[in-house]
Amino acid sequence: MNPRPIGVFDSGVGGLTVFRAMQRALPGERLIYLGDTARVPYGTKSVDTVMRYSLEATRFLLQQQVKMIVVACNSASSVAIDRVESAAGVPVLGVIEPGARRGAEQSTSGRIGIIGTRATVGSGAYEKAVRRIKPGAQVTSRPCPLFVPLAEEGWTDDEIARAVAERYLSPFRRAEVDTLVLGCTHYPLLHDVIAQVMGAGVALVDSAESIAAEVQRRLRDDACLIGEGSGADGHRFYVTDVPEPFQAVAERFLGRPIRNLERVRIEGD
Amino acid sequence: MNPRPIGVFDSGVGGLTVFRAMQRALPGERLIYLGDTARVPYGTKSVDTVMRYSLEATRFLLQQQVKMIVVACNSASSVAIDRVESAAGVPVLGVIEPGARRGAEQSTSGRIGIIGTRATVGSGAYEKAVRRIKPGAQVTSRPCPLFVPLAEEGWTDDEIARAVAERYLSPFRRAEVDTLVLGCTHYPLLHDVIAQVMGAGVALVDSAESIAAEVQRRLRDDACLIGEGSGADGHRFYVTDVPEPFQAVAERFLGRPIRNLERVRIEGD
Repeated sequence: MNPRPIGVFDSGVGGLTVFRAMQRALPGERLIYLGDTARVPYGTKSVDTVMRYSLEATRFLLQQQVKMIVVACNSASSVAIDRVESAAGVPVLGVIEPGARRGAEQSTSGRIGIIGTRATVGSGAYEKAVRRIKPGAQVTSRPCPLFVPLAEEGWTDDEIARAVAERYLSPFRRAEVDTLVLGCTHYPLLHDVIAQVMGAGVALVDSAESIAAEVQRRLRDDACLIGEGSGADGHRFYVTDVPEPFQAVAERFLGRPIRNLERVRIEGD
Repeated sequence: MNPRPIGVFDSGVGGLTVFRAMQRALPGERLIYLGDTARVPYGTKSVDTVMRYSLEATRFLLQQQVKMIVVACNSASSVAIDRVESAAGVPVLGVIEPGARRGAEQSTSGRIGIIGTRATVGSGAYEKAVRRIKPGAQVTSRPCPLFVPLAEEGWTDDEIARAVAERYLSPFRRAEVDTLVLGCTHYPLLHDVIAQVMGAGVALVDSAESIAAEVQRRLRDDACLIGEGSGADGHRFYVTDVPEPFQAVAERFLGRPIRNLERVRIEGD
């Protein structure tokens, strides 16, 4: 076992879905979460900029002596994972690969849908990963930019959410996918309306559970897993904008008070 | 007259509405536009962060030897205008004051509505400015975060835009405002649906025209206005993310090819 913490980064609060799943799967581990709230979102920005931000986040986490880095942000995982891996010198896991594998395994027809930000969908990263695992897969993908502000407004289960979901998801219904990968950390908040629109025969895949299982497997294989005790007291949270709004969302989301929350600056050459 | 250019900054592309109005009102002037596309949007971020970004934009424009700075972003104008003014050493104009004045002048009932980002509405800047000009005014305000992604998706005149507008604007109809200030540079793109929902008796105020008139008046008063010739060949555009997406939007919006577009980095202590 290795007592150093695991680093998790995201463009903002969305990666807390990954944090929560990891906390459940890895109760003995200390986690360090970094949300780049001063520059959120990443999903509308260029490959070049998302790469730079991801490398800055990586450098910050390495300064915290992490033993592994989990890229919780789908946009960053899509375009920057290789660069982060070369720079890190510790194992790096992104959400694309585990999400794609779960999607490929769930699908019986081989018709798989991917939804995410413009950066994620534009990169083709999920499609490539799905086709690597299931070569004959027919992949349909589309960005759904309104899903994030809908989730942030809390308009997750009403006639507007339904109308938006129907418009975005109609290509997936036409393509008769049997599996839809929710390739953005915010989208699970719209799970119910997406499920209603897609119908009962379509499986929805949320990367958070898949990545947590993958982290556990990897730490066990490398004999780095802390199996006992509680890491929760050692969790630390860092944000790049003021802490208060993050704290409110995080406490509601994780269902307990957040301590060890600090604002940091990570940009620079 | 003063041959130096005028600097205009915004969090992204939205300030091009202000740029376009200024170009029409001030055909002899050279304009320098800075869009902070690597950190857009500002409207969801804290006062502290928007202030820092605004000061970095100001420093960049001063390095370009501008004779005046126009803060085209409503969020930055709301929270950072005083700090930008102290730092600049050249005249600084924001969009709040001219928009509020136009709103106050338009309104006969004194019941005025303000819509904008969370940062703009949360600051109370429009309300304060309106009440300074028209002390008895009854001001209703509300953030409308979904309007920006709707405008960016081009979903500006359909049943989803209408349903979102109806939900956001119902408090203004109940308050029986006769004037609604569009306090975000993106909102004029939803002008038609907002007008439909508010009804024919309600005047919509767009800050872009008001600020352009104010800049003209100010330069004339200070004997700095370039009345003749064409400044258009001297316009320059800077963005903080890659230039291509900005170029496409700007050319469509301004109706002509954009030259002199460059990516820059502006952050730093």
